[in-house]
This record gives sequence, C-alpha cells and structure tokens, in this order.
Amino acid sequence: MIHGFSLIGPAPGHPGGATFHAQNPATGARLDPPFHSASGAEVDRAVELAEAAAPAMEAAPREARSALLCRIAAGLEEAAGELVPRVMAETALPEPRVRGELARTCGQLRLFADVAAEGSWVEARLDSGHPGRTPLPKPDLRSMLQPLGPVAVFGASNFPLAFGAVGGDTASALAAGCPVVAKAHPLNPGTSEQVAQVVQAALLREGLPSGAFSLLFDAGHDVARRLVGHPAIRAVGFTGSFRGGSALLELARNRPAPIPVFAEMGAANPVVVLPGALAALGSRLGQTLAASVLNGVGQFCTCPGIVLAVQGPGFRSLRSGLAEAMSAAPPAPMLGEGLALAYRRGLERHQAEGANPVFPSCPSQGCFGAPALLETTAQDLLRRPDLMEEVFGPATLLVACADEAERRKVIAAFPAQLTATLWMEPGDEALAADLLPELRRLAGRVLFNGVPTGVEVGHAMVHGGPWPATSAPQSTSVGTRAIARWARPICYQDAPENLLPMALQTGNPLGLWRLRDGAFDRH
Amino acid sequence: MIHGFSLIGPAPGHPGGATFHAQNPATGARLDPPFHSASGAEVDRAVELAEAAAPAMEAAPREARSALLCRIAAGLEEAAGELVPRVMAETALPEPRVRGELARTCGQLRLFADVAAEGSWVEARLDSGHPGRTPLPKPDLRSMLQPLGPVAVFGASNFPLAFGAVGGDTASALAAGCPVVAKAHPLNPGTSEQVAQVVQAALLREGLPSGAFSLLFDAGHDVARRLVGHPAIRAVGFTGSFRGGSALLELARNRPAPIPVFAEMGAANPVVVLPGALAALGSRLGQTLAASVLNGVGQFCTCPGIVLAVQGPGFRSLRSGLAEAMSAAPPAPMLGEGLALAYRRGLERHQAEGANPVFPSCPSQGCFGAPALLETTAQDLLRRPDLMEEVFGPATLLVACADEAERRKVIAAFPAQLTATLWMEPGDEALAADLLPELRRLAGRVLFNGVPTGVEVGHAMVHGGPWPATSAPQSTSVGTRAIARWARPICYQDAPENLLPMALQTGNPLGLWRLRDGAFDRH
Repeated sequence: MIHGFSLIGPAPGHPGGATFHAQNPATGARLDPPFHSASGAEVDRAVELAEAAAPAMEAAPREARSALLCRIAAGLEEAAGELVPRVMAETALPEPRVRGELARTCGQLRLFADVAAEGSWVEARLDSGHPGRTPLPKPDLRSMLQPLGPVAVFGASNFPLAFGAVGGDTASALAAGCPVVAKAHPLNPGTSEQVAQVVQAALLREGLPSGAFSLLFDAGHDVARRLVGHPAIRAVGFTGSFRGGSALLELARNRPAPIPVFAEMGAANPVVVLPGALAALGSRLGQTLAASVLNGVGQFCTCPGIVLAVQGPGFRSLRSGLAEAMSAAPPAPMLGEGLALAYRRGLERHQAEGANPVFPSCPSQGCFGAPALLETTAQDLLRRPDLMEEVFGPATLLVACADEAERRKVIAAFPAQLTATLWMEPGDEALAADLLPELRRLAGRVLFNGVPTGVEVGHAMVHGGPWPATSAPQSTSVGTRAIARWARPICYQDAPENLLPMALQTGNPLGLWRLRDGAFDRH
Repeated sequence: MIHGFSLIGPAPGHPGGATFHAQNPATGARLDPPFHSASGAEVDRAVELAEAAAPAMEAAPREARSALLCRIAAGLEEAAGELVPRVMAETALPEPRVRGELARTCGQLRLFADVAAEGSWVEARLDSGHPGRTPLPKPDLRSMLQPLGPVAVFGASNFPLAFGAVGGDTASALAAGCPVVAKAHPLNPGTSEQVAQVVQAALLREGLPSGAFSLLFDAGHDVARRLVGHPAIRAVGFTGSFRGGSALLELARNRPAPIPVFAEMGAANPVVVLPGALAALGSRLGQTLAASVLNGVGQFCTCPGIVLAVQGPGFRSLRSGLAEAMSAAPPAPMLGEGLALAYRRGLERHQAEGANPVFPSCPSQGCFGAPALLETTAQDLLRRPDLMEEVFGPATLLVACADEAERRKVIAAFPAQLTATLWMEPGDEALAADLLPELRRLAGRVLFNGVPTGVEVGHAMVHGGPWPATSAPQSTSVGTRAIARWARPICYQDAPENLLPMALQTGNPLGLWRLRDGAFDRH
C-alpha cells in the first residue's frame, strides 16, 4: 500500500507541500497516488530523529546491525509481489532486469550484513604504551573507524532498488552504524516508499530506533537544500548526474561546517580496442559492445560511451557489428521524459560538434530514446573535447584513430572516468602494458576483454574515480570498501579499559583482525 | 650551504622574483641569504618534473621507496651540525626541542620506510571469478591502493622539521609513491632548503628520479595559487591556520578538476576536568596543563586552549596552579612577528568578548608573546561562541561551569577539534562514560589524564577531526594511516596475470596481508 507521504521515522508526513506523480515511461500514464513534498519542519524532524537514533545505532552490537540488514533483505524479497510491478510501472524496465536488480539489492544488503557481523572493517589499531620511555613516556594509543552520525542519501533514478533509497549507500551507512535520511528520486517515489516501509518494519522487528531511517519526498529541490544544510547531517551519498552532484557539493561546502559528499556523477567509460583484438574479434566485438550500450536503454553510469580503435584490419567489422546491433534495436522508453529529452539534446550537441551518425536514428519522442552510433576521428575529438562528455542513454561514439600515437593523445586528454576497458589478444600485450598506467590514472576500474556494465558487488570492486567521475576520488560507492565512507578514525589515548569500545579492548573480545604494534593478528 | 634559490628537482631556481629573508625571532636579526621567489615557469617546471617522475616512483620496488626514506633520515642526522643551528636561528626554539624534533622527523621517516617495505598498506583485495555463474559470469576482481601522482605539500611554521618541507606529509607521500612539490614556509626557508638538499642527495644515491622532489620559495601567495591550480597536481597537504587552509581549499575547488585537500587547521583542544580529578589534583593539574600550554610558546596545533571545570572542591586550586605556573613564565619569542601580533590581537578580542585575565599580562612586542590565562563562565561562553576559537600562542581559557548540565551544553556547542581531553579519578567513571560519546563526536583523538601536546607518531595515532579542525575528517596527518591520503583504490577486472601489479598477483609474491574472497591472509 503506497500512501504518498514521506516517512519521518515511522510516522507519515503531512499534506500541504507541492505534490507530484510518478509516470509510466512506456505508456505515459500517470501513476497513483500523488506524492506530497516534505515540509522544512518535516526535514528537520527526520534529521532530529536520526540524531537521536545515532548513539543507539553506534552502540548496537554488530549482530544487531547485521540482523537489521538481513531483515531488510528478507523484507524486500517478501514484498517482491508488490515491489516488482511498481518498479516496472515507474521505470518501464523489463521484469527479469527488475528481479535481477532486486536480487542484487538483497545480495548487497547481506554482504554488508556479513561485513558488519565480522567487524574487522573498523580497522582497529593498538600501539602499546611504554611509561618508562625517555625522554617522554609513550602513551597507549588505540584507534578505529567509528560512524559519522546521521547521513543523507539521495536515491538514484537508474537503479531504483540497488541505488535507490535503500540501495548501496543506505546499506553501507546502516552497516557502519549511521542513521540515514533518504531523499526519494522523483522518478521512483512509489518504489522508494515501499522499500522505506520494509526498513521501518525491520527496525521495529530488530528493536532498533525507528529514527534510524526516514524517507523524504520532494517535487523540487527545497528538501535537498534543507537536508544537506542541516548541521546534524555529517555526510552525503549521491548517484546521478554531474549537475546534481555538483549542486549537492556546493550546498555541503557552503555550510558553516562543510561535510564530505560522496557523489558518483557518471562517465563516458572509454573502451580501447587493441589491434590484435580488433583484427580477431571485429564484428563480434561490435555486437558485444552494442549489447552493453543498449543494456537498460543505456542508462548505466558505466555505459561504454566511447570506443577507441586504430584504423586497420577489423575496424570496418567493428563498426558494422556495432551498427547492425544498434540499428536493429527500436527506440525504448527511458526512465523519464527529462532524461529522454536530455539524451536527444546530447546527441544533437554531439552532432553539432561534428560527430556523425553511422545510421539514421529512428525518430523518438516523449520518454523514448533511440539507439545512436556516432563516429568521429581522434583529431576531431582532440579539437572538440566536449565530445568526450557522457551522453546518458543508448549511444556510443566510435573514434577512429590514425595510429597508436594519436590514440595515446586522446587517452591523455580524457577527463577522469569510472571505468576504462581494454580489449586485447595475446599479440597486444606490449601495447597493453604500455597503456595500462595511463588507463589506471584515468579511472577507478580497468577491465580486460569485458564490458563495464554489470558492476559486481564484492570486496574488491571499486566504483569511483577522480573528478568529474566522482566528488571523492578515494572512495567507492559499490563494494564493501564503501562502508568506510560513513566512518572516521577516532583515537583513544591512555583510555581506561572499561571506557574503550569493545573493538579496542585488550582481550579482543570481538576476535577482530587488528594491527597490534604494527603487526596484523586476531588474538 | 644555503643558496636562497628554489630547488626545481636538483636544479637551483633563478633570481628575478621578489626576495625575502628569514629572521631570528629572539633577536630580530635578519638572516642571510635572501630567498628568491619561484617564478610561474619554475612552478610549472617543478610540477612537470614531478609528473615525469611519477611512473618511476610508482613502479619502484617497495624496497627502493623504503631505502629512500631511510636515506633521507640518515642524511638529516648527518646534516644535524648545520641544520640544528639554522632551525634554532629561524625559530628561536631551544636546542633540546630542535634536536627532539629532528629525532622525531627521522623516526617518522623510518616508520614510513617500514610501512612501505612491509607493503600491506595497499589494502590488496582479491575476489575470485566464477565464469560459470548464472545468470551472469562472475568476473575476477582485484583492487589495491595506488599512488595519486604528484602532490603539493605546504611546510608549516611551527614544526620546521616534523611538519616542514620534509615532514610527515612528504614522508607519507613519498612512501605512497607520490612525487612531492613542496612549498617552503617563509618563516623557515633556510631549514627548508637544507632538508630539500638532503632529499635530492638521497634520490640521487638511491637511483630514483630527481624530479620526485622540488622545493619552492615565495614571498607571497603566487606560488601556492599556481601550484594548487596546476592540472598535474593530484592532492594537497597543509598544516597551518584556518585562513591558510581555507584559501588552499578554495583554490583546489575552483580548479576545472577539483582535488582533495588535506588541511590540518588547528583547534582549541578542550580539557574537561571531572570533579574527582579536580578535587584530587587541583593545583598540580593546573601546573601540568600550564606546562602543556607553555610548551613551544603555545605554538602547537594541540595546545590545550580551553579548560572546562565545574565549580566545586579543587576549582580554586586548579585556577591558582594554572596562574602560578603561567604568570611565572616570561614573554618568549614566537616564530614570527606576524604570529605574535595575531596572538596579541586574539587575546584582545577574547577580552573584548568578556574573558578576563587572571593575572596581568607582561607587556610584549615584536616577536614576543606573553603567557595569558583568561577566565570566563560557561554562560558567557555560550553567549559568546567566538570565545571557543583558538588563540594560537601561550594562552588558555579557564571556563567555570555552574554544574554538569551547563558543561554538557558547552561541549555540545563546541566546533570540532583535533583533541578532547578528560581528566578523571576512579569516582568519575560514570560521568566519563556519559561524556565520552560527545567528546568522540567532537574530536579525532580523546585523551585521558594527559596533555594533548606531544603527538606520538605511530600506527594508531589520529591527528584529525571534522571541520574546522581539518578539511578532511576521514584522514589523519600524523601516524601511518596518513599514507592513505596519497592513494586511491584501483580495481582490475579479469586482468591477465602479467599485467597485474605484484601486490595483486595470484601467488602473492610480496607476502602481503590481503583480503581474499573476504578473508584476511598472507598466502
């Protein structure tokens, strides 16, 4: 049952603010019910509840946080019967994709549950004291990561579950012990309310404070302003556009006390096809890349938006493989009319900059976006660096390089990226070794003979990169490293044993991996 | 031999820019030689050399980076005969303090050498692939921290060795594999040139690229602007004033591609004296705190600038202990006339806000600062929050609280701090347990029955905290965690074994502690 009101802790918000509706992108139909924007007082109340919940969330035993996350995962699975149709209605994504995303969302909740339960993520360090040291006694020092306090999470449009109000940011923040005030993305408000209800039920069931999670709706930007500006909010998580991320960063910086913003703002995700791979795979590789571009109607942060190949054997096959697969795909509904419009405008801008369509694009309107394959030369790309920017949607730009030297110039000129992909065959190894340092300086993840879409959630994943891919180049928003975004190291000097957090107590009652006088052990 | 020119890699800069002199703060004497500001072209050249050195520094085996740091430490010790007198002349700090700081500087270089040699700081993670997984194959993912590239380090005034051009920021950046372009603090240019020569000699001796370290002089702020604005600089380290740190942050934000700034900007470092400790220690505690305030003429980021005590048994003794020790200390030379002037103005501002001097301050002028004990009430402090700000110098503010409730209000109103200190006796434990969550939310380090000055360099130290104590609340500028500031995680997906960094190769040839499929081991 979707009510259309914010959840301020467990309590529904009030009518009064501007309302908005979700829309079915495939049919254009308006979806009920209307959603009511949260008032300033409701934002404040949500943050106050989060602040009041922070000590209990921090003090909760690791088993409790872990159980909460498992309970949320189970709750999402139990709600699948209502949840999946609503996601499909709000996004026009096909059922297998939605069910897959639900499984991934539950998987990441359980992965963070494991991380919270195991506990070594706090990076405990103990340095023994030496009171007799001269000229000065050596203090006993112990430090560990502890939660920042209440954080704000902005749900994304393109993964309403996995990066939505209860996606990876919320899962990792709750695992770290931070209460979350989430802002629903206006393209998936019903989905957001459903998952928020699941979180509220899980908090109740696990005996954790209901103020540890709130969900806010907004037809505009007032809630974001007030939420990010609230003095009790200690950090911000966001996945979305460069413009959106930059706006949140600006809000966070202009606070009397600025706070960290972890904004993942997308990328063009260049694919570099080396000569051996080009000659060997040509058309087949074009089809593989096209499938990655078309996946989710191109609405992935890791959509491969630029393909760099040196003219030579296989180039024409690569081009025709891409063109065949992409021209065969009909226009498809994007997540919202604004996104589709921005996509069409992005294609127009690229064409105005001299990128040529390889095949005539189907006309499309409303929420629909038609696949587009553009092409240009490395020389033109270097003259028109705007062509290096992401066009969010089912498009990619094939760049013909005259030689490897020209390709290197293009790579050196790229802005930072979430991913860089290398296609190679055994004969390409020397060239790959030569390019690899450039690619790794550019991106958070370097892939070999694969496609960047389909971001695996695990311990080793890095979904990040320098500006403009993200606002926080030293973090990741996917994978278990993401938990560290919501904590900071605190050091205790000469603390009495009984005042220390359990993770730092001498006997290691939690059995954590710790760095003791510089050596790892779990004794 | 001090020449007065920047070191652009190994090559001296050229005359032409504005010149400035160091000064002996105790005598006012101008110290030779004049120092020549680096030109814009010299700044660019230093960064270009650093950029060219970055691949070799990154690729250097861990033993080479470790040997470099040990060589620098040995070089500083060998240069002590010339270095110590120059530091003393530029700072008026007493010889034991300077020799102690030199030992600490060499100690931290060797500690980072150990960290680099051991190698597990890269946090290697390996997740096995599973090509047969359905519905999608699971990729092989491996990630680790890798160096950011060239970084800018701003030497501090108050620790010309330990936080100077070759202090903790430079030691940790070189350990991480990042070339450093250092800007000398204008109050210790001769010291900076001497230590820079040691680094150049060490790079040469160890066969590492000379472009991995440069030193820039500047009479003004042009070098900082150009350096932080240079596109090849990937991060900034700074220890100094709030104003200085904020200015660098602004420069870094306004770049086309913003970069992280790790600015440690000082704090008032509140000391909370609980009733049992107050009654038991009174006057003796006053003397202990006074010694910490007077240490280094109060010019420590961790100088205890605010003492909170509830009126009751021992309060008058604490006050008189502080007053006796502080009034007995004569005015002493601060590091420069600008700092001394800012100190005197800070005291005037505090008095204008209603803080009363406990004893009449000695008149002082020029570089000299006279110890000052001010007092106020919690009520007045709450009304005048400017009194919570740091006055950099040998001063502290004794705050009389009417009761514990009032003290809690003050603690809740504090801006963030580098440290918070609790003095307690066995009877104070319940109160301490109650206050501890508040204190740890406030600061990067919480101390018990000690003084915050004397920051131990070890694995567990945290010298950091939320804004305004630092610009990067999740980092520390002291201790081995500091190395992580200069690196970011990079993920390799399905990479051929021979293209992987050694730290990520299957056989673990470096014997690192790694997280393999979620479990720590070193196999």
